[in-house]
Amino acid sequence: MLGPRVWASVRPELSKALSKKMRGWASGEGRKIDIAGIYPPVTTPFTATAEVDYGKLEENLHKLGTFPFRATQATVEMTLSMAQVGADAVMVVTPCYYRGRMSSAALIHHYTKVADLSPIPVVLYSVPANTGLDLPVDAVVTLSQHPNIVGIKDSGGDVTRLGLIVHKTRRQDFQVLAGSAGFLLAAYALGAVGGVCALANVLGAQVCQLERLCLTGQWEDAQKLQHRLLEPNTAVTRRFGIPGLKKTMDWFGYYGGPCRAPLQELSPTDEEALRLDFTTNGWL
Amino acid sequence: MLGPRVWASVRPELSKALSKKMRGWASGEGRKIDIAGIYPPVTTPFTATAEVDYGKLEENLHKLGTFPFRATQATVEMTLSMAQVGADAVMVVTPCYYRGRMSSAALIHHYTKVADLSPIPVVLYSVPANTGLDLPVDAVVTLSQHPNIVGIKDSGGDVTRLGLIVHKTRRQDFQVLAGSAGFLLAAYALGAVGGVCALANVLGAQVCQLERLCLTGQWEDAQKLQHRLLEPNTAVTRRFGIPGLKKTMDWFGYYGGPCRAPLQELSPTDEEALRLDFTTNGWL
Amino acid sequence: MLGPRVWASVRPELSKALSKKMRGWASGEGRKIDIAGIYPPVTTPFTATAEVDYGKLEENLHKLGTFPFRATQATVEMTLSMAQVGADAVMVVTPCYYRGRMSSAALIHHYTKVADLSPIPVVLYSVPANTGLDLPVDAVVTLSQHPNIVGIKDSGGDVTRLGLIVHKTRRQDFQVLAGSAGFLLAAYALGAVGGVCALANVLGAQVCQLERLCLTGQWEDAQKLQHRLLEPNTAVTRRFGIPGLKKTMDWFGYYGGPCRAPLQELSPTDEEALRLDFTTNGWL
Amino acid sequence: MLGPRVWASVRPELSKALSKKMRGWASGEGRKIDIAGIYPPVTTPFTATAEVDYGKLEENLHKLGTFPFRATQATVEMTLSMAQVGADAVMVVTPCYYRGRMSSAALIHHYTKVADLSPIPVVLYSVPANTGLDLPVDAVVTLSQHPNIVGIKDSGGDVTRLGLIVHKTRRQDFQVLAGSAGFLLAAYALGAVGGVCALANVLGAQVCQLERLCLTGQWEDAQKLQHRLLEPNTAVTRRFGIPGLKKTMDWFGYYGGPCRAPLQELSPTDEEALRLDFTTNGWL
Repeated sequence: MLGPRVWASVRPELSKALSKKMRGWASGEGRKIDIAGIYPPVTTPFTATAEVDYGKLEENLHKLGTFPFRATQATVEMTLSMAQVGADAVMVVTPCYYRGRMSSAALIHHYTKVADLSPIPVVLYSVPANTGLDLPVDAVVTLSQHPNIVGIKDSGGDVTRLGLIVHKTRRQDFQVLAGSAGFLLAAYALGAVGGVCALANVLGAQVCQLERLCLTGQWEDAQKLQHRLLEPNTAVTRRFGIPGLKKTMDWFGYYGGPCRAPLQELSPTDEEALRLDFTTNGWL
Repeated sequence: MLGPRVWASVRPELSKALSKKMRGWASGEGRKIDIAGIYPPVTTPFTATAEVDYGKLEENLHKLGTFPFRATQATVEMTLSMAQVGADAVMVVTPCYYRGRMSSAALIHHYTKVADLSPIPVVLYSVPANTGLDLPVDAVVTLSQHPNIVGIKDSGGDVTRLGLIVHKTRRQDFQVLAGSAGFLLAAYALGAVGGVCALANVLGAQVCQLERLCLTGQWEDAQKLQHRLLEPNTAVTRRFGIPGLKKTMDWFGYYGGPCRAPLQELSPTDEEALRLDFTTNGWL
Repeated sequence: MLGPRVWASVRPELSKALSKKMRGWASGEGRKIDIAGIYPPVTTPFTATAEVDYGKLEENLHKLGTFPFRATQATVEMTLSMAQVGADAVMVVTPCYYRGRMSSAALIHHYTKVADLSPIPVVLYSVPANTGLDLPVDAVVTLSQHPNIVGIKDSGGDVTRLGLIVHKTRRQDFQVLAGSAGFLLAAYALGAVGGVCALANVLGAQVCQLERLCLTGQWEDAQKLQHRLLEPNTAVTRRFGIPGLKKTMDWFGYYGGPCRAPLQELSPTDEEALRLDFTTNGWL
Repeated sequence: MLGPRVWASVRPELSKALSKKMRGWASGEGRKIDIAGIYPPVTTPFTATAEVDYGKLEENLHKLGTFPFRATQATVEMTLSMAQVGADAVMVVTPCYYRGRMSSAALIHHYTKVADLSPIPVVLYSVPANTGLDLPVDAVVTLSQHPNIVGIKDSGGDVTRLGLIVHKTRRQDFQVLAGSAGFLLAAYALGAVGGVCALANVLGAQVCQLERLCLTGQWEDAQKLQHRLLEPNTAVTRRFGIPGLKKTMDWFGYYGGPCRAPLQELSPTDEEALRLDFTTNGWL
């Protein structure tokens, strides 16, 4: 019932170009489809009348395109139509409304069906903060064997689980993406190959720099950079959500613009706290 | 993002007829719209190929119509079209995907907008087991003052909260419905005026009998009947969900039929346990 | 590892005197030990130097003794010594530190051992708000058959569960007590025989009046009184906890006095909100 | 109300010897007290009659002493007596029974008092799986400034939080220890200086080897080793708890022995699953 999200590549050539230069252990050579790298989950810009602002969307994508990541966006019923209009892959969030019945068996059945019918590769998406459920590790391991399922975006932040997924799918062509910049360094350290990071919408260069430091084994510098990204990341995700992300995009020269109800704009107090999370870490 | 549910009356005249006979403190005389009574949230019957089986739906409604309740069904974007095709009211579930941002203010804004634009009355719907969030009591109290919001279906099962809602909206024309037959007696005891009960799809006469016992102050008999409905109710809701409800409908002469993925059919072991919850209480 | 609580009767003769007058369906005649009735979980008064103030404790007990309930207090290792100094029964909270291992089997084993060795009757105590776990219904049903286990105090507030416990132990000599005044009416409606209510420390006469209305079938008056007790009850339990209860005791002429660290005194803002919950319902 | 735990060093000279050889960024030179390194939280061995088996405890400590870590054990009221009998430091778990009132202010007050009065250094201990609450980051930051609080054991597994604690206490002499071997590599990558790891009771050499790989920057080998420790670690902690840990200790030549009620011994099925988690990763 929850909307799936479509995965559309933005300037994939840039990402590929970067990947080619990398010689890290996370390199995706020979994979059925390489999804390694940093992706910003692109916000949907709205006009003052709550219409999707396609002009602003294009503008943002153009700006984001100058950093080496790809955009993600989604809806589940639209997998086929998304494929028709040229999407490279679809990312499918776990169904969750009847969460009490979302057993491993039910979820395996769900994703298998989607993957069977999708003309483009499927990326699993587990985001317990929104859905109230984790895609169980045993389900991920089973699904990793499906030829049309290429990886997972895991936003739960449990790196023990994330490492276990990498470990138990190591014989499959299966790629793990961190679902947030907050545990990106840890995810790379455990074998993830990239991240889908809200923060990359505003600190895109810095998140890509963190990727580079991890891939080239510069862990001490990576740690310092990761530390400075923690509070800004929490601010645009768990703490202030989409309204916080859009407000920050405005500050950083992108078009964030208004939110769509029921999401509310930030209060002046919240906005001040949001700004503080960026200034105390030297980003504003 | 979660689908809203439309509220369509099934044989409202029957329910009205019953209500007229009642002289309890829960009587809805003079209300803007009277929603008191017992409602089964009607299951959607599917054919073997997962198409909605409208014939079976009509058949079920016909059978259910012989008991004094109305059917509920919903989707949020369909409020207007539902009104056009004749719905009496809409029941709107809390939005929940970005639950971290679903403050009282956000939820009040959401429901106020829906109620402002809806040509038919709006019933609030709080179901934390599915959405992971409660509609806060202060939001309910504020929304109860909207002329087009007539009540709430509360499925949380916290009767302290439910009693508080009745108490704090007592000066409004606002009606509280229990969202499950498991706490129906308790809800009536605290001032609710009805229930939307999955169990009424199979033990409709019994749930309506429980209503009658409560409304006429026969609390000892009500307690005995309520006790015998507890396990069957849990079985077709929290324990075995929609698959359990549909299976039981088949047993009781309705058309339950197959579930739609990702929901799975019950295993033989689960089916046995489900049956036991009805037999040990004397219903099968 | 969590401290057990001892159950010491305060003026049981008063309670018995009241019970005798009652002719309700909850009457405890012929029971192995009758624990029906209203009990305030007595706060521990401290001096300014955080010593237990036994003089104040005696004073409070004296005042509380003028209402028909008994005091409860507890510690698990002290069951035997409590029996030696004259306690009538012990109430034993669920162990919870290693909650991941607190299966039904483990809890049944635990309580069976305590009950086997205790010279005085044992009351089970399930309080998920503090312990993070419910004593499972199947464990309660099994334990209800133990000759030295006489009942349960259930503070979870889930009356569906509470009704199920009453229903499934109906052939045992087993008594159910509501663990809070917030769902006391509902608990009586479902077959409970009393309550252990923090609120009874300050509105003791009113809580006992609510008991009387329920036991004599005056449900409409009971509903009105229950409604007016909801906010005060939440205020001295979930909302402001022990500090709120003690502050209110001071207002009502008991000795509440200071809290012991780590519990903190209320802020002036909290104190104002606490007072409001009593004034808006006509108690102050 | 929950028992505090005392921290007693076992063969600290061994640990120091190892630390001296290290030249990593986590080195503790010049600290008020250096708590870096790997520690097994020592299990309490019982005889068949549930008495503490001091002989076996000494035997285990002797064996553990051959690996470079120190033992931890605890009870809160015993801080002073533990200091008298020679403990190097105390580790104090968050109080949690009245968790609804355990605000940052309350917890800061609690730890400040303990640290003020303790003759030996205090280590904070946050273990939400057991206590149901996290010690808030802002409380940790405030407490890190206390001269007698030297660090924290954090068992929550949220490395975003853990990194933030390292980042925000970087100007204090404050040391962060991972509370489990499951996220030990990630913790080191984010700036932790050691771990208190149940798994070190059975795979002590391997956990210390993982420490060494992290401290010397051999991250690829560290990743491979960490992967192989994930399932064994979960098995002796979250999955099978103390009974699992003790059973495994028996297998590895230590004395695990019986558990004390309410903890139950493993079923044969669980024991088989436990063994599998070690064999599939090449440890048995």
